[in-house]
Amino acid sequence: MHILIIGAAGMVGRKLTERLVRDGALGGKTITRATLHDIVEPLAPAGAPFAVKTLASDFSEPGEAEKLVAERPDVIFHLAAIVSGEAEADFDKGYRINLDGTRYLFDAVRVIEGYVPRLVFTSSIAVFGAPFPDAIGDEFFTTPLTSYGAQKAIGELLLADYTRRGFFDGIGIRLPTICVRPGKPNKAASGFFSNIIREPLSGIEAVLPVGEDVRHWHASPRSAVGFLIHAATIDGETVGPRRTLTMPGLSVTVGEQLEALRRVAGDKAVALVRREPDPVIVKIVAGWPRNFDASRALSLGFKAETSFDDIIRVHIEDELGGKLGV
Amino acid sequence: MHILIIGAAGMVGRKLTERLVRDGALGGKTITRATLHDIVEPLAPAGAPFAVKTLASDFSEPGEAEKLVAERPDVIFHLAAIVSGEAEADFDKGYRINLDGTRYLFDAVRVIEGYVPRLVFTSSIAVFGAPFPDAIGDEFFTTPLTSYGAQKAIGELLLADYTRRGFFDGIGIRLPTICVRPGKPNKAASGFFSNIIREPLSGIEAVLPVGEDVRHWHASPRSAVGFLIHAATIDGETVGPRRTLTMPGLSVTVGEQLEALRRVAGDKAVALVRREPDPVIVKIVAGWPRNFDASRALSLGFKAETSFDDIIRVHIEDELGGKLGV
Repeated sequence: MHILIIGAAGMVGRKLTERLVRDGALGGKTITRATLHDIVEPLAPAGAPFAVKTLASDFSEPGEAEKLVAERPDVIFHLAAIVSGEAEADFDKGYRINLDGTRYLFDAVRVIEGYVPRLVFTSSIAVFGAPFPDAIGDEFFTTPLTSYGAQKAIGELLLADYTRRGFFDGIGIRLPTICVRPGKPNKAASGFFSNIIREPLSGIEAVLPVGEDVRHWHASPRSAVGFLIHAATIDGETVGPRRTLTMPGLSVTVGEQLEALRRVAGDKAVALVRREPDPVIVKIVAGWPRNFDASRALSLGFKAETSFDDIIRVHIEDELGGKLGV
Repeated sequence: MHILIIGAAGMVGRKLTERLVRDGALGGKTITRATLHDIVEPLAPAGAPFAVKTLASDFSEPGEAEKLVAERPDVIFHLAAIVSGEAEADFDKGYRINLDGTRYLFDAVRVIEGYVPRLVFTSSIAVFGAPFPDAIGDEFFTTPLTSYGAQKAIGELLLADYTRRGFFDGIGIRLPTICVRPGKPNKAASGFFSNIIREPLSGIEAVLPVGEDVRHWHASPRSAVGFLIHAATIDGETVGPRRTLTMPGLSVTVGEQLEALRRVAGDKAVALVRREPDPVIVKIVAGWPRNFDASRALSLGFKAETSFDDIIRVHIEDELGGKLGV
């Protein structure tokens, strides 16, 4: 089986690649080849039991998507996107990559006679815009308040229509905020949700710019990879015509995050979190979804953590070799 | 004030033009010019108290939309679309006109510095796909089961995002099925809803291909024009960021339609309706929405008929000069 990952150099793409290398198979079928694509060339993973080709191009340039699918990969993971902040700052670039690029890819698959791959598309909870109900259900409407959210919602509609027409077999998944995000603190408005856990676990101070009552929706990087694997292998018939699913996650407050940190790593870890309220971030975060009822995805077998302690433990196991640095 | 109607040669476009000619004004402002555009040149209305320019072009050709908005019309009615059946039969054409054409238009407006017209976009209840609740509410998700529905749902997302970014001031309206549709019987699967009223009122036999228990969502052509006028003049601030509204309508069964016909035009009109069940049409119609809770539009002042007798009377007044032909 041949797997194509578009957006393979990003955090989720790298973790998905690691998992495929470890498993050597997907849905019981041996992986024989993987093509890893991004705007910058992805690193080839070490020790892969299958052939790996890495390549870099801009898939929103006409003709590039055709090259990616010309060898008819059996499963396509479409993870590539301009992120929210950049899509907001650069209107043209956001639409070019997130909408036109996605459509070029879908059309490149469509025009190949007799080729109907599984195509997994990562959408986002940014398709929802405030005001929300306490828990957003599976039938709530998508009224994004960012261009990124609009582009993802359009991708969902194209995915469903192209699937209904039989051009490919698409599954869209709306990822929760990934926590604990590995790496350095970044400037994303959502960065603090991870920073306040990751940094203290390594004995480093972290800044908390919002109040402890702020509630948000989380899943670990390991769960995100699990969602992708499950989306790649699930029986499309059981999903029906509504092809995009809100993934399960965990709704916790910042206070609950810190209590979990205390249970897992002690008071001295929590003491490293410095309160420094930032009105700009407080305002941005106030417009974000807080909780979901992801019944459909759960009933279809998607699984996420059910306690924040587990989310922290996943980070310690997967990123810190099982050892605390605090 | 200068008004541009794109899709002016269609039934709704013609009725809108007639109304503007009659009113001579929109939202209290005198109309000085109207530009009427379609893929075929619209007829210039008789007796218009303002200058009228008619023109034909394919607005999905690059550069055509720019020409349409170059003179900065104050209000743009975007009614142009490939209809459902054709968009399903010709995938490329549907996406080219309904998605690309719409986006070219939106971008043509976007790139003109300091130009922020009101833009009224006609969407459709085809954005919804079965299964539905008994009455589809304002926050129900859009999961279209046709390419036309997907294209309209994408147009709604673009409309909201371009409006949020300040490129224009968009209002989308999802029209009910227009009944009684004037003219000859056509081959649209929904045609019978109008045929069984319009034809008997003129003493002509009509075919009913479904059972009397079939329920559907209707508004008169006069109401459709009223929706457009209200959408063109409503205060955008009161609408907020959710720019597309399901229009009010009347949910009635075919049996209730026929009882109204009996009350308005007597037994001999109803006797002209011949039952001839068509399993293909029965199946198509089974997937259509039956009823809506259009609370938001009602609270914003959109108005429709509240009895099917009124819908029939509107047809008799507007199309038959007030006289029955049966």
